[in-house]
Amino acid sequence: MRIGVLTGGGDAPGLNGVIRAIVRSATLKYGWTVIGIFDGFEGLLGKKNTKELKPWNTRGILSRGGTILGTTNRGNPFAVKVREKGKPTEKDLSDAAIGNIRKLRLDALVVIGGDGSLAIANRLFRKGVPVVGVPKTIDNDLSETHVTFGFTTAVETATEALDKLHTTAESHHRVMVVEVMGRYAGWIALEAGIAGSADVILIPEIPYGMDRVCRKIAERKQAHCCSSIVVVAEGARPLRGKMAVIERDPSGYAIRFSGAAAAVGDGIRQQTGMDVRVTVLGHVQRGGSPCAADRILATQYGVKAVELVFRKRFGHMVSYKPPEITSVPIGKAVRKIKLVDPDSEMVRAAESIGVSFGR
Amino acid sequence: MRIGVLTGGGDAPGLNGVIRAIVRSATLKYGWTVIGIFDGFEGLLGKKNTKELKPWNTRGILSRGGTILGTTNRGNPFAVKVREKGKPTEKDLSDAAIGNIRKLRLDALVVIGGDGSLAIANRLFRKGVPVVGVPKTIDNDLSETHVTFGFTTAVETATEALDKLHTTAESHHRVMVVEVMGRYAGWIALEAGIAGSADVILIPEIPYGMDRVCRKIAERKQAHCCSSIVVVAEGARPLRGKMAVIERDPSGYAIRFSGAAAAVGDGIRQQTGMDVRVTVLGHVQRGGSPCAADRILATQYGVKAVELVFRKRFGHMVSYKPPEITSVPIGKAVRKIKLVDPDSEMVRAAESIGVSFGR
Amino acid sequence: MRIGVLTGGGDAPGLNGVIRAIVRSATLKYGWTVIGIFDGFEGLLGKKNTKELKPWNTRGILSRGGTILGTTNRGNPFAVKVREKGKPTEKDLSDAAIGNIRKLRLDALVVIGGDGSLAIANRLFRKGVPVVGVPKTIDNDLSETHVTFGFTTAVETATEALDKLHTTAESHHRVMVVEVMGRYAGWIALEAGIAGSADVILIPEIPYGMDRVCRKIAERKQAHCCSSIVVVAEGARPLRGKMAVIERDPSGYAIRFSGAAAAVGDGIRQQTGMDVRVTVLGHVQRGGSPCAADRILATQYGVKAVELVFRKRFGHMVSYKPPEITSVPIGKAVRKIKLVDPDSEMVRAAESIGVSFGR
Amino acid sequence: MRIGVLTGGGDAPGLNGVIRAIVRSATLKYGWTVIGIFDGFEGLLGKKNTKELKPWNTRGILSRGGTILGTTNRGNPFAVKVREKGKPTEKDLSDAAIGNIRKLRLDALVVIGGDGSLAIANRLFRKGVPVVGVPKTIDNDLSETHVTFGFTTAVETATEALDKLHTTAESHHRVMVVEVMGRYAGWIALEAGIAGSADVILIPEIPYGMDRVCRKIAERKQAHCCSSIVVVAEGARPLRGKMAVIERDPSGYAIRFSGAAAAVGDGIRQQTGMDVRVTVLGHVQRGGSPCAADRILATQYGVKAVELVFRKRFGHMVSYKPPEITSVPIGKAVRKIKLVDPDSEMVRAAESIGVSFGR
Repeated sequence: MRIGVLTGGGDAPGLNGVIRAIVRSATLKYGWTVIGIFDGFEGLLGKKNTKELKPWNTRGILSRGGTILGTTNRGNPFAVKVREKGKPTEKDLSDAAIGNIRKLRLDALVVIGGDGSLAIANRLFRKGVPVVGVPKTIDNDLSETHVTFGFTTAVETATEALDKLHTTAESHHRVMVVEVMGRYAGWIALEAGIAGSADVILIPEIPYGMDRVCRKIAERKQAHCCSSIVVVAEGARPLRGKMAVIERDPSGYAIRFSGAAAAVGDGIRQQTGMDVRVTVLGHVQRGGSPCAADRILATQYGVKAVELVFRKRFGHMVSYKPPEITSVPIGKAVRKIKLVDPDSEMVRAAESIGVSFGR
Repeated sequence: MRIGVLTGGGDAPGLNGVIRAIVRSATLKYGWTVIGIFDGFEGLLGKKNTKELKPWNTRGILSRGGTILGTTNRGNPFAVKVREKGKPTEKDLSDAAIGNIRKLRLDALVVIGGDGSLAIANRLFRKGVPVVGVPKTIDNDLSETHVTFGFTTAVETATEALDKLHTTAESHHRVMVVEVMGRYAGWIALEAGIAGSADVILIPEIPYGMDRVCRKIAERKQAHCCSSIVVVAEGARPLRGKMAVIERDPSGYAIRFSGAAAAVGDGIRQQTGMDVRVTVLGHVQRGGSPCAADRILATQYGVKAVELVFRKRFGHMVSYKPPEITSVPIGKAVRKIKLVDPDSEMVRAAESIGVSFGR
Repeated sequence: MRIGVLTGGGDAPGLNGVIRAIVRSATLKYGWTVIGIFDGFEGLLGKKNTKELKPWNTRGILSRGGTILGTTNRGNPFAVKVREKGKPTEKDLSDAAIGNIRKLRLDALVVIGGDGSLAIANRLFRKGVPVVGVPKTIDNDLSETHVTFGFTTAVETATEALDKLHTTAESHHRVMVVEVMGRYAGWIALEAGIAGSADVILIPEIPYGMDRVCRKIAERKQAHCCSSIVVVAEGARPLRGKMAVIERDPSGYAIRFSGAAAAVGDGIRQQTGMDVRVTVLGHVQRGGSPCAADRILATQYGVKAVELVFRKRFGHMVSYKPPEITSVPIGKAVRKIKLVDPDSEMVRAAESIGVSFGR
Repeated sequence: MRIGVLTGGGDAPGLNGVIRAIVRSATLKYGWTVIGIFDGFEGLLGKKNTKELKPWNTRGILSRGGTILGTTNRGNPFAVKVREKGKPTEKDLSDAAIGNIRKLRLDALVVIGGDGSLAIANRLFRKGVPVVGVPKTIDNDLSETHVTFGFTTAVETATEALDKLHTTAESHHRVMVVEVMGRYAGWIALEAGIAGSADVILIPEIPYGMDRVCRKIAERKQAHCCSSIVVVAEGARPLRGKMAVIERDPSGYAIRFSGAAAAVGDGIRQQTGMDVRVTVLGHVQRGGSPCAADRILATQYGVKAVELVFRKRFGHMVSYKPPEITSVPIGKAVRKIKLVDPDSEMVRAAESIGVSFGR
């Protein structure tokens, strides 16, 4: 057996752990050959861009962030951006990709990726490629899996940042507004907010009233808590009024201009007159050495992916339904996003201890 | 309503988070009064040793290890150590303790503790005290709850230590034998071992053969991996031969002399002739700021405990059965210990990637 | 003896360590009384806002960031902002402040602060107040002291962020532009840049050529290093072309709009066409638990400040001239800023290993 | 020019940083060739065990602990352990080593090592080998340099462990005795002790009276500080009474049996009757990612070593005399050990804030 492995979409701590576990399990337990494909689906197009992976050349990577295979958000073989007659257009090169998979003599392809990459994987599967998926989403917004690697590390990183901002906030009696990742789902804001003792947590799933946010901060001030921590998911939006315009230009950093946190900070400053500082955590949340929990989950995912190949459960992806590592059809998983339920136990628990969601 | 709170047994990161959530939820949501009882059950005996807890005097403790209430392994009111006629004996002072609970006018008592403390809590409940339990075990060996706060932090601390020992092991081509907590259950060794890229993991649930451990290390050397990491739970024991004698004197540190890791290190050195170093991680595993996951779990536990009091579900303890925070009768939980299943998915996954359990 | 202590200006990790050492040294060694003054010089005006500090109420603060006394950038008693006849104006209330110092029966005043606070301290000294200074600057830009507490922690925090960004940069073949503190002096950028394996470091002391920055990145790409890390001090400025406009509105966050890093990122994207991401580390750099070196330095500073009071060396501030902790006249220290010498050993060493400063 | 590099003695965080800086500076600035020699001086004997080092194969190592070249405490070419006529003896194979240096066509040899390795380097230099030294000592006990890489990281690691032990000590009202590295010099104990808020610090340079240690702890208990932290250097010794026997067997771990901390813990328990726990930090202190300060120092050392080769200052070693990186004759540096001066400013400062050294 020869199996190919690729990583797609944004990077997340734990990707290397999945790769390592696939390589070790496939070679040590089954005696198979593992071919690493570089730079996501791009590696399947054009020039052959692969390398055989063995235990010795994947040694020591479990504790390292990122992916040794490289990754990209481009390279969807069903919609490759090309220029035809001088105009940019999209072309379906999936047959070429499948041809390359055959040339590489792969008996199976493991795709480690998020919603987008898994959807591509599923289309390749429907065209006959023996595909197995491993879910990846730092935002934790993939349905059909309780949690994925990377998310726990991102929450830890954001929590550590909140711990640091607390001391400054208290010393200066300031309101610190902190933007964390989460364009559609507020999981990182919710969990880091609770862990980081936030006073206000604003998430996409619960549109906030600026008045209520400010009332909370004013109440705290009256109770002689002159500093407050406000955690804002990048996709948080107000009930009414000018929403934070999320205009990203190609390099992505334009969001700083009119991001969710800037809008919230502005509102608080105008309504309360307090000293406000805004911090956008940004890319540090995706990076760094995965925490122990993510390393374990990544390892289990990699082992399970190889087992799925062994059992020929193609078209399936690994899934964590505690306490079990199991699998589900990829098609079922990519259909919908997993959002924070505004009435969930965790949101209610946070409100019980005095956290405001601006509602 | 007035509710009392105490922490019993060994400390664990997250205790303060539970206390804080109880105080905030009880006072902010229900308007109750919370009385902190110092030093576990000892605080219920003799002199009144209590303090009213409010949001302002539990501020900032979510991120701090240990317990602001103090804790102790002594003070079982059903078996208080006293001297009678010059001889040490045990006396049942539970009625005095219950009398003190009445004098404090407590409508409920929340006991945050491990197997021992919860068993005491259950006996008090059966004598009529309205008790609610919150499970605590850094070893993760309590049944009836998927995981408890403190464990994840301990695994993280042990993993970080393993990361550090790797670089030394590789530079010197050494075998590093590392003893982690886990007298009866090998959860910390198993999880930190996987996360810390251990080559051998020895746990109480799987008696190890010294020969097999050494064969693994010898195989690695032949494959030019001259360094190996061996993680040993303090309760790990060999299949045959002189077992590591766990003789603890009162202060506990005698275990260094003849602990599990020392025995393993000795065996490896004798059979392989390699350069071996033994490290006993010890108490650092219990300490430090809880990781984000433990802070969240602790917060949810505290909120749930107050809810159990509100619903008068006395005799119950909080329990995490993912994805739910629920409750179970304390009596059911303290009856048996939760061990690693030698045939579990996680153990099998570790073996798939080449980890030896010495079997 | 009764001595007052206040902290002024922006917070820095280590302030609490200085306070703790002053309290312990003054009370335990000399038997003096220590009065903490809240919120910088503001605490000396209007209502009496003080608290006696003792070992028990400064326990455990060495490891905590920020300042238990609070701090502010406002409150210069020589130029208090007031409204007179409806118009905002400044008033010299230094005599009132000095009156309050007398009412508090202080035999000495220890001012822990940066350039601004020390200048105020010096003016109070010239008006007869027995003042001793302790230098504080997270940017390390105070002359007359080799280094101050807080700086080393800030460099560590920035370096950890760079470590995290590396993995993302490599996985995505991106250029990561990271803005760190340093409006006038580039110390944090220089040290974190070297420690964080930056490829380009831009500091206020060395105006950069955008062409040279891009040439460096292009050279790396040709050598198949498709990711680059660019560290930019907030005060870095180009040799020519539109300088990054540093327009801060009162809340300070407007700098995001047109900051130094955004300008650099823009330039790189335009000239190289590469995938660029910009991260502004912001306030996390000031917060968090001080590293060991800063705790030690803070402790030595506090002890030295008390010794200066004992020796009646008023008008002096503590200073670290390795290997000695000594003192210098405050007036000498506040006169000039300490900049990075573009020809210094450290800059030259960085260039030797291939770092570009854009010159 | 071709220069050889080797690392000798125990590993220390920062070794890789020196190697990387040597490689980058020698190749990028001077265009030289760098040959890495594996496993210390052993690599110069017998089979050729070397590899050309280039920027691409030393990429990413600045942040990694240990040494990619491997190291060993064996392999002194002037006293190689051999068996002659069945008996173990020592043989001078330095001429063979020098022959190999010639065969490798090395124009200079950079030795990164401690007292032992530098002494060997100096003997090679006196026999005509163009040697340059880089000092390495995690204990900071090398004279002629203010500090070396690795020490600051070790202090940080020990301080973090103390932070963790504090919470447990306080929760349980215990005395925690912690053994840190330092067989001859107490630098790590002194600095980590101050940074970690220790109550007692015992170092080899100040023989301690058990009575005084216990008096300090008893005083604290009377003042209602029921927990104490005692930091003990492994070479700390009592004024009188049975000294902690330091019997190390070849694998080194026998020291646990009767180490300095165990002896101190025993004494405190006997004299005060308090609950005592002993932790031996051990090898974790040598490992892990170097802190920013050590990465910078390591980089500066590597650059300076290449500069010394360029200037043909053979027989010299790099040295840090703040604020300068300079050089001294190796012979001068290896002659004596740098001890803590019992009357130094830092010791006196610690005593001022109430720390006892047991004198």
